[in-house]
Amino acid sequence: MGEFDLIKEFFTRPTQRAVLGVGDDCALLQPAPGMQLAISTDMLVSGQHFFADVDPFTLGHKALAVNLSDLAACGAKPLAFTLALALPESNATWLSAFSKGMFALADQHSCELIGGDTTRGPLTISITIFGEVPPGQALLRSGACAGDDIYVSGSLGDARLGLEALQGKISLSAHDLVQARQRLEQPTPRIALGLALRGIATSAIDVSDGLLGDLQHVLDSSKAGATLHTHLLQPLMIAANQPLAYILAGGDDYELVFTAPPHLREAVTRAAQSARTPVSRIGCIDASPQLRLLDAHGTLVSGTFASFDHFSSSIAS
Amino acid sequence: MGEFDLIKEFFTRPTQRAVLGVGDDCALLQPAPGMQLAISTDMLVSGQHFFADVDPFTLGHKALAVNLSDLAACGAKPLAFTLALALPESNATWLSAFSKGMFALADQHSCELIGGDTTRGPLTISITIFGEVPPGQALLRSGACAGDDIYVSGSLGDARLGLEALQGKISLSAHDLVQARQRLEQPTPRIALGLALRGIATSAIDVSDGLLGDLQHVLDSSKAGATLHTHLLQPLMIAANQPLAYILAGGDDYELVFTAPPHLREAVTRAAQSARTPVSRIGCIDASPQLRLLDAHGTLVSGTFASFDHFSSSIAS
Repeated sequence: MGEFDLIKEFFTRPTQRAVLGVGDDCALLQPAPGMQLAISTDMLVSGQHFFADVDPFTLGHKALAVNLSDLAACGAKPLAFTLALALPESNATWLSAFSKGMFALADQHSCELIGGDTTRGPLTISITIFGEVPPGQALLRSGACAGDDIYVSGSLGDARLGLEALQGKISLSAHDLVQARQRLEQPTPRIALGLALRGIATSAIDVSDGLLGDLQHVLDSSKAGATLHTHLLQPLMIAANQPLAYILAGGDDYELVFTAPPHLREAVTRAAQSARTPVSRIGCIDASPQLRLLDAHGTLVSGTFASFDHFSSSIAS
Repeated sequence: MGEFDLIKEFFTRPTQRAVLGVGDDCALLQPAPGMQLAISTDMLVSGQHFFADVDPFTLGHKALAVNLSDLAACGAKPLAFTLALALPESNATWLSAFSKGMFALADQHSCELIGGDTTRGPLTISITIFGEVPPGQALLRSGACAGDDIYVSGSLGDARLGLEALQGKISLSAHDLVQARQRLEQPTPRIALGLALRGIATSAIDVSDGLLGDLQHVLDSSKAGATLHTHLLQPLMIAANQPLAYILAGGDDYELVFTAPPHLREAVTRAAQSARTPVSRIGCIDASPQLRLLDAHGTLVSGTFASFDHFSSSIAS
């Protein structure tokens, strides 16, 4: 099957929202009057971000999920995306499953594929996603203020737990493995929470490289520091007795870390409820530019918790 | 150098137009009121689209040029782009040259980098580009009508000529090699021509896979056929005695093929002059769905001129 047949068979569907979708030199999108366009791009490489033999359905889900997660962190409503795909061979079975996984998640968020490119090459997936947000309402990394509470959605470290188990480095109960693997392969982008946090959160980021590393981006952008408490983090794992490092720097979590002033705690609770997404308070923003981790006794926890850097780590290493 | 240092050093510049550029979960773009957004994405893979040892400056140029060419074919004005980049290693010298080549072309078109992703992996470049076009004025593939003239900009086949010469399959004079290599490695996106053809051309496409193959996409979308004349095509090469196949199916030309009704011939000439881009009339659109090639005597030229398909061809093969 050639390049154009591939695109036609697996990636061309009637457009719902775009003026023009797949099949011309450009797609055409008519933004709603006055809205800003939130745009993000991610590239997933076989052997770096996923195993070459991963189930293509879950890979299609995850490739889109990591991009939706960026829109969530920005408080943007998903609109559309483009897909660039390099494939070692034209495999209809693989493509069928991949596109089904991708479109299943896309349809949940009314986010439509409007253009793309396919080529032969080492398996690589690059998605660029578009969402909309009213001017001034995007959640940025730069708005955290001293005194703000720090929150995280869902659970942390389970994707890493699943990865280590699949690599045979640790063993898990069957129940925990199913859950951890689900979190690794089919993360849930926190779109509803991001939308609910507009006007409440002062800053937000999605946790893709690990809690400490991604929170540090917020601190750098906001020129602030933070104090986190291990006893508030410990309950955030799905399996007992996980290393704290998985929570702090596991990577691939796709949860939201965000900040909000203490007088909006009830509003945060209501936002979490309306989005049906669990949210935990894990610390607070400090004026001094430092990220401190305290145990239940208030003692400073030392240790190096390296964040995931795609130039120093990979699932294949 | 780690992922974030790379992004900061080589790809973060002050934004001119975007509300928010590189460095947050999403970039923010505020489209001009009423304008449509034209969006295109392309992926270039080492060994498929370029040689692994290609000059990174020219690669930076070409990676953006092929995307700008899609905006040109649509009649859209460039606004911004995102870059996803997989690199086998973090090489500052390479990245510096690559980013310089990319930004030199970007600045020519006031097209700014607003976001991206870098990761380790086989050298792969995926750019998604955004332009703007007034509603109803985008040049599409679907508007060609029987009786329309068919035009092509610039010259055809020289990129293929350069490729074959660099691969040692043919020999060229020093002068022709310089020109052909320039066309292969640093194609000129026909942005000014695309803008000048708004309201004149009935259809347009950029020639990336070869004239016949890309014109066929226009014919398919427009439900029409075409007659081309070899004696009108022959002058379109920079070197004498090229195989006709290079002109018809060389690939990597990044010229515009477009159609316009005969009563607008003067308007086409003026558009070409205002865009300082040579344009040649090479045939006409027919009602019957067939692509015919005639020689100077009106005799049908037979032969298979395969278009470039990224699943059947590559520079490495």
